[in-house]
Amino acid sequence: AAKRLEKFKTTIFTQMSSLAIKHGAINLGQGFPNFDGPEFVKEAAIQAIRDGKNQYARGYGIPDLNSAVAERFKKDTGLSVDPEKEITITSGCTEAIAATMLGLINPGDEVILFAPYYDSYEATLSMASAKIKCVTLRPPNFSIPVDELKSIVSKNTRAILMNTPHNPTGKMFTREELNVIASLCIEHDILVFSDEVYDKLAFEMDHISIASLPGMYERTVTLNSLGKTFSLTGWKIGWAIAPAHLTWGLRQAHSYLTFATSTPMQFAAGTALRAPDSYYEELRRDYLVKKSILVEGLKSVGFKVYPSSGTYFVIVDHTPFGLENDVAFCEYLIKEVGVVAIPTSVFYLNPEDGKNLVRFTFCKDEGTLRSAVERMKEKL
Amino acid sequence: AAKRLEKFKTTIFTQMSSLAIKHGAINLGQGFPNFDGPEFVKEAAIQAIRDGKNQYARGYGIPDLNSAVAERFKKDTGLSVDPEKEITITSGCTEAIAATMLGLINPGDEVILFAPYYDSYEATLSMASAKIKCVTLRPPNFSIPVDELKSIVSKNTRAILMNTPHNPTGKMFTREELNVIASLCIEHDILVFSDEVYDKLAFEMDHISIASLPGMYERTVTLNSLGKTFSLTGWKIGWAIAPAHLTWGLRQAHSYLTFATSTPMQFAAGTALRAPDSYYEELRRDYLVKKSILVEGLKSVGFKVYPSSGTYFVIVDHTPFGLENDVAFCEYLIKEVGVVAIPTSVFYLNPEDGKNLVRFTFCKDEGTLRSAVERMKEKL
Ligand SMILES: CSCCC(=O)C(=O)O
Ligand SMILES: CSCCC(=O)C(=O)O
Repeated sequence: AAKRLEKFKTTIFTQMSSLAIKHGAINLGQGFPNFDGPEFVKEAAIQAIRDGKNQYARGYGIPDLNSAVAERFKKDTGLSVDPEKEITITSGCTEAIAATMLGLINPGDEVILFAPYYDSYEATLSMASAKIKCVTLRPPNFSIPVDELKSIVSKNTRAILMNTPHNPTGKMFTREELNVIASLCIEHDILVFSDEVYDKLAFEMDHISIASLPGMYERTVTLNSLGKTFSLTGWKIGWAIAPAHLTWGLRQAHSYLTFATSTPMQFAAGTALRAPDSYYEELRRDYLVKKSILVEGLKSVGFKVYPSSGTYFVIVDHTPFGLENDVAFCEYLIKEVGVVAIPTSVFYLNPEDGKNLVRFTFCKDEGTLRSAVERMKEKL
Repeated sequence: AAKRLEKFKTTIFTQMSSLAIKHGAINLGQGFPNFDGPEFVKEAAIQAIRDGKNQYARGYGIPDLNSAVAERFKKDTGLSVDPEKEITITSGCTEAIAATMLGLINPGDEVILFAPYYDSYEATLSMASAKIKCVTLRPPNFSIPVDELKSIVSKNTRAILMNTPHNPTGKMFTREELNVIASLCIEHDILVFSDEVYDKLAFEMDHISIASLPGMYERTVTLNSLGKTFSLTGWKIGWAIAPAHLTWGLRQAHSYLTFATSTPMQFAAGTALRAPDSYYEELRRDYLVKKSILVEGLKSVGFKVYPSSGTYFVIVDHTPFGLENDVAFCEYLIKEVGVVAIPTSVFYLNPEDGKNLVRFTFCKDEGTLRSAVERMKEKL
């Protein structure tokens, strides 16, 4: 491999999902539902395929989907954006992240991450030859250590990369925390890249897009996708919303990373995003039930469960069970108990920081969640 | 935009397709069919969506598609490859190219291109901080200038990036030319990245994969896709075939560029690749008719038409019509004649080299090709 990727391994999600299959374990690791997406969205894709919407899409998205993203963003944030100049459709949020880094970050630019962080952030920053600075969100509340954050801002800081609701912790950034980030960015002329793919899975408080704070839209790239909200993680439709000057850069990278995204799936995504609010309410209600099954179950098994306000993940402390670290615990859990969770040390610049913590997902049907809890109760 | 992408513009294909729509011109520019892909492939995608194949695929491809690619490669080249360790499914060949560059090329590595070249080659090499070396294929035959090629190989040459059948010229690399490249690569320990997306559109001679030459498989990444062969350019399914040590590097990049590719489309792609040989024969026959309509038409209009052995493109010399260069000619053609072609200067390191040449595609129904010829006959 090229040096820029030498330190990275097969993604932890791939590793754990392969092990799940190999050991016949219940997969509460990688975040994909074991139930299907809504019929009306699937039918829209089928219709598009039948209608012959099967050739290259416009590189930055079919007009209908760019508009649907703009309409949804307006509903969610109150912000009016130009669907033609400020929205780019990508092959999943993962590609939007890569395009943002490669399109907007120069070698040596410093980018601030909050650990634990989604693994592609570090890898794509490495592809962009950025310098990573990191503040760690610590249990129980995973709050931003404000003084620490301020202390690592330098004249070379180009961007802060954040994620709310936050994977893997389930933490949601509070208005106070967002205000701190916003003031820092405005004061020091820093960009924000905000990954908000779990925005519709907000349980304990309302999701706030940092782009909606005064003075922030012009310096923010908001990243989102279809997969989590519509239980269609395999369709790989994502997008980036950003003012024209930032969109220009990330579109350049997008043009040469994938050029365009699956045309029929884009038509279906437009239909999906125009779903009535009742769709999102029902999704949230369903997930609240799943969440409570998993969280109560994990507590009854004996884990220390940290509060999760959003996403379909929850973090626990596994130390009551006496395994030496997160990786050893997850290995035991797969082989002896038959359940897959995700070790978190891979999400830290310093792996030691994650050694007590593992992540479970509740994006599975209720029976599966109950069976997983049963197995743990019996065998842990 | 980040410096690595500053010199690039909106892709020429996007520019020209927008102009086609704006001026209501017949689009013989960007290479996408104006007819639909085969029903049996569309139905396979619909079935996969209905069957709930809608969650994340395995990052490097669903097992069925990896196997189908291996089977097809075996049929085409005689080479047996391990579908699990030597094949990676990507979001179009464009992503396979990007992953190859970012996954295998280090800053400062020299990579040799043949101009004119597909625009993403230069942009992705720039993302990888590679140093581009270039030899120019010149009309009428676009043969490799062997001495020139040998003279630019240095101890820093890491790879040769080639494309056969060749876009935009329609040239196919002969066995003699491939032998020259192979000996150079073996002698100097150089990799080959071979973009073969038009392999099934070979008219005047048989397509040869350079991977099938003695000693070459172990140093070759063969890149291909579904879109051209199945007239489904909008589905964005591509792949890279390479020995395990090269696959490892490019998979690392792929993991963080897009992670995985649309699951239902992968199922359909597996079905497509298992089509009987008669499918490919019919495709070729249909394209031969289209090619002859366009080529004879362009000649009758008064262009000098260069021989095209493969792809669905043909290059002409526009100078009989007295416009100052390829860009001016294409502008005139859109606005005054109502036909879109692609100027070629953007495909050269030195744009001057392409100033007499424009590219037409014949991946359109026969009526459209005839109308375009009529318009040119009337107004040029
Ligand atoms: C792209 S695979 C990872 C899925 C996911 O978002 C997660 O499990 O964190
Ligand atoms: C990815 S858009 C370009 C399509 C194509 O292969 C071409 O027209 O050369």
